[in-house]
Amino acid sequence: MELQPLFDHIGQYTPLSEEEQALLAGRVKIRKFLKGQFVVQNGDICKYENFVLSGSLKTFYIDNEGQEHIVMFAIENWWTADLGSFVSQTPADYNVQCLENSVLVQLSYEDLQQLYLQIPKLERFFRIIIQKAFVAAQKRVINNLSMPAKERYLQFREQYPLIEQRVPQYMIASYLGITKEFLSKIRSQLISGSS
Amino acid sequence: MELQPLFDHIGQYTPLSEEEQALLAGRVKIRKFLKGQFVVQNGDICKYENFVLSGSLKTFYIDNEGQEHIVMFAIENWWTADLGSFVSQTPADYNVQCLENSVLVQLSYEDLQQLYLQIPKLERFFRIIIQKAFVAAQKRVINNLSMPAKERYLQFREQYPLIEQRVPQYMIASYLGITKEFLSKIRSQLISGSS
Repeated sequence: MELQPLFDHIGQYTPLSEEEQALLAGRVKIRKFLKGQFVVQNGDICKYENFVLSGSLKTFYIDNEGQEHIVMFAIENWWTADLGSFVSQTPADYNVQCLENSVLVQLSYEDLQQLYLQIPKLERFFRIIIQKAFVAAQKRVINNLSMPAKERYLQFREQYPLIEQRVPQYMIASYLGITKEFLSKIRSQLISGSS
Repeated sequence: MELQPLFDHIGQYTPLSEEEQALLAGRVKIRKFLKGQFVVQNGDICKYENFVLSGSLKTFYIDNEGQEHIVMFAIENWWTADLGSFVSQTPADYNVQCLENSVLVQLSYEDLQQLYLQIPKLERFFRIIIQKAFVAAQKRVINNLSMPAKERYLQFREQYPLIEQRVPQYMIASYLGITKEFLSKIRSQLISGSS
């Protein structure tokens, strides 16, 4: 069953009955994206919450100087969207782009509102998921203020254990807010075991 | 009824029956704090979600150099806590301190877990509230990257219309990530109408 990873993921927080799984399955779309394709584009309304079945994506922001800032990555079993745009159905600030060919489960805003009424325990599930996202976002602000780049890099590897080999180094540097050269230096230090 | 502002606030998102209001009232504590008193202390576990009936508070982080960074303010009808600490019941990164004498409705972690079972619509309420907090936190990251300080200050005044007269200017500067002198300059420019 293609949606099994989604049901397993939700089941970690609040198990769904077979009937509820069927209701959910009836409202989602599975969609394939190519490497480089945009799932959300800055200025458009973000219509879907996206659950990653396979592949990887980056969420980024372009500042007034045209510089790209990566705010998060998403890999298998993560959710990705411009949540601000999705919940208020207003134009997105962020872009979400595929770093590899990706398969996503898409849940539209309207369908999710219906599902909240049909499966109230999804309120609990999304409350917990968004709580985690909020806490992670706040920690990231603190870490950027107070943690040396090397520790932030080690934390990144812990948070996204599967992604390091899959995305270019300059993107990891962008996520960490450092230059590619500095990231290179940190990596060589770690490999050679010096501190 | 002392808790009426809390019921009104929740009612904006999901109205509670009288029975549900009574259940909630049975599980909260109303507590008075003095100006300067800490509601959450860095290193302690944050035991309560706090709804502000009156007064004002700041949430701040002390970096490794001992510098204070204000991450949010809270005034009447806002919630405040170290959410990461609260939801995982682990030591807090932040401090929450009263800027004025304040009256808070406190809801403990254990009581909230019970209330989620007794009043499932509170799942919905907190999902929406945390969604808003997450979106605001993400916007703040973007604004810090891309918006001139003057616009960030104007946005601050819009977001916290009641707080500017109530807290010292240096705290607003800390929240905006600028110096007190620069904030002063922005304010004089706005008063004199120049740009």
